[in-house]
Amino acid sequence: MPVNYHTPAATDLWPVAGVRLGVAAAAIRKPDRHDLTVLALDPGCRVAGVFTGNRFCAAPVHVCRRHLALGSDIRALVINTGIANAGTGEQGWQAATKTCAALSQLLAIDDRQVLPFSTGVILEALPVERLIAGLPACLADLRIDNWHAAAHAIMTTDTVAKAASRRFVIDGRNVTVTGISKGAGMIRPNMATMLGFIATDAGIAAPLLQQLLREAADESFNCISVDGDTSTNDSLILIASGQADVEIADPSTAAYAKLREAVIGVALELAQAIIRDGEGASKFITVAVEGGHDREECKRVGYAVAHSPLVKTAFFASDPNLGRILAAIGYAEIDQLDVDRVRVWLASGGKEILVAEKGGRAASYREEDGARAMSEAEIAVRVDLGRGSAHAAVYTCDLSYEYVRINADYRS
Amino acid sequence: MPVNYHTPAATDLWPVAGVRLGVAAAAIRKPDRHDLTVLALDPGCRVAGVFTGNRFCAAPVHVCRRHLALGSDIRALVINTGIANAGTGEQGWQAATKTCAALSQLLAIDDRQVLPFSTGVILEALPVERLIAGLPACLADLRIDNWHAAAHAIMTTDTVAKAASRRFVIDGRNVTVTGISKGAGMIRPNMATMLGFIATDAGIAAPLLQQLLREAADESFNCISVDGDTSTNDSLILIASGQADVEIADPSTAAYAKLREAVIGVALELAQAIIRDGEGASKFITVAVEGGHDREECKRVGYAVAHSPLVKTAFFASDPNLGRILAAIGYAEIDQLDVDRVRVWLASGGKEILVAEKGGRAASYREEDGARAMSEAEIAVRVDLGRGSAHAAVYTCDLSYEYVRINADYRS
Repeated sequence: MPVNYHTPAATDLWPVAGVRLGVAAAAIRKPDRHDLTVLALDPGCRVAGVFTGNRFCAAPVHVCRRHLALGSDIRALVINTGIANAGTGEQGWQAATKTCAALSQLLAIDDRQVLPFSTGVILEALPVERLIAGLPACLADLRIDNWHAAAHAIMTTDTVAKAASRRFVIDGRNVTVTGISKGAGMIRPNMATMLGFIATDAGIAAPLLQQLLREAADESFNCISVDGDTSTNDSLILIASGQADVEIADPSTAAYAKLREAVIGVALELAQAIIRDGEGASKFITVAVEGGHDREECKRVGYAVAHSPLVKTAFFASDPNLGRILAAIGYAEIDQLDVDRVRVWLASGGKEILVAEKGGRAASYREEDGARAMSEAEIAVRVDLGRGSAHAAVYTCDLSYEYVRINADYRS
Repeated sequence: MPVNYHTPAATDLWPVAGVRLGVAAAAIRKPDRHDLTVLALDPGCRVAGVFTGNRFCAAPVHVCRRHLALGSDIRALVINTGIANAGTGEQGWQAATKTCAALSQLLAIDDRQVLPFSTGVILEALPVERLIAGLPACLADLRIDNWHAAAHAIMTTDTVAKAASRRFVIDGRNVTVTGISKGAGMIRPNMATMLGFIATDAGIAAPLLQQLLREAADESFNCISVDGDTSTNDSLILIASGQADVEIADPSTAAYAKLREAVIGVALELAQAIIRDGEGASKFITVAVEGGHDREECKRVGYAVAHSPLVKTAFFASDPNLGRILAAIGYAEIDQLDVDRVRVWLASGGKEILVAEKGGRAASYREEDGARAMSEAEIAVRVDLGRGSAHAAVYTCDLSYEYVRINADYRS
């Protein structure tokens, strides 16, 4: 059960003009479930992508990078769940390119205008013939208001579908940003998340679109961790169809600022939804680090706390064993950290408690206050490093019996 | 229950001339258990230490570093379990120095000749009066053949006491190396382990002793991880009493080589015992990485695999979901790793199975062979990076329900 998260209703997801979605059951790994999704893009859409930093990156990630680098007008995305097509060598590359070829034939476009995505088990072969056989059903299902179905069709160990949508006005015209994502385990995105797709009907120049996507990824998917495991398939895509009749070319304009806020807002909502649905999660934890020399060291401290199995099990148990947080801050390898200047607070339900200062427990701290804060489903840890003005937030969940059960059972 | 480990019998631990040990119940955190240990050293002992890299290092670690840096002849070690005296600020420093002062008075030595050690809960105050009240009982118990009792008295969440002992001959004289360690969680030593104490009756010059200790730590305690959490209190101490009438001053001699082999052997046995008794461990896993540019990148890959909760839960479940190992190798941030040259084997019970090569699953790999290997209690993963001649091994355990239970319950 996710922590304070419900999939938005289908009617709460604004369609994005120029982007149609279709799903089908192709029996990629299991029968009778939607496991294949196609996004068909009208001519003129611009597409930007960021991908995993994992050296063993999946075959479809290689193909996506290549097709985006060619500068071809992307006209379709095809996504399968069940098999990740990673750790599949030459055979995996062939499966991904065959997929693009089959879809491009059906749509009468070039195969370099297709981006393929896969998610699921690593080191197993993608059943490409079954995938290709499922494509016509996807195309028959193509609809502009199908984001809700697509959000479901890309799930793996997710317990809920993840989607977010915003509509706002630029120069008197309605602009929409809608996105979906999936992921619950192997979540510590390096460049992006497991899979995320965001579209807007604003028009935006290609280099600026890529810049916007990098900023959005850095503020959202690159700030989350379930288990510290960076996936082989992480991909985040931003599509701008331009059909809202709003063209943005200058990052210093108010229009760009509005669009940026909406895209980052949708990206953050989708990224946090992944944590709320993190494998076995019973709590949603924000680690906000401030007072650092730079953002990078704030993130390093945030991730040290967010990755510590001892911190995560203490949250699961609602046990204010907060020395474990201090220990994690201490091993984050921050050069010349003066621990006497570090302060740590625990916050939940609108109340903030000073836990540690001057290298030790705060005089005002009461264990019963800590226990109360730890028992909430939404908890924030705030850390002030006391040596600068940079800050960053990292989002994670607790480590429960359920996490072990899910991952001990995943393939069976 | 530890994986294939039993504490050696008291009679299997050779005493080290010049080193006496005593234990007592001081009710540091819980009543009626031995939680206080003193090692009394004869004049002339040389002592070397390596300590945690955690910035929030415990007060006793600060005091140890200071006393060792002063070059004072160390004559006593005092170790309490229950409270780590870490994250305790100025008060913690006072508690550690008071402990040294009290013991030095009882032994009629200088307080700078005492090294203090603590292990247990972080962020709670050390009950120094109770500790001091327990010292006379420790001194009354001092015996040369008390290593077994001391190994028990330093335990925290350990389920078994850890000790190792070797005797060998140099220049016709018997030389002994005996050591004890503790630790089961918060185990990812950076400089040393949670607590380890090794003594030899060989004589060895101080700088060489320190060099030997660093080498031994690097080959043993610095190659293990239970949960990736580097403790605030890690300390490894090597004592050379010189009473075997063997003096070693030159690292190029056969005598040094013999001593080195024994010290590293004892250290590795103690370090591996910590993993075998890792919190919730049901399997002992060796990750052996070869073919790297340097030892450092081999260790980086080894730790990426050893820290992955997904890999660790797959081992717990005996599920050959080996793509998770590939993913971990892939995100270890090895520059320009050519994944097509990486090979991965799984070994247990004397059999080795090639799992992956050329970027994917090996043609000869059969899932039933993988499942059989994964079901054993001792498993080795061998990784060849295919780009050099360096190698390193990292030791870890699986991640089980029991790990979560222990750490959700630890303080209660």
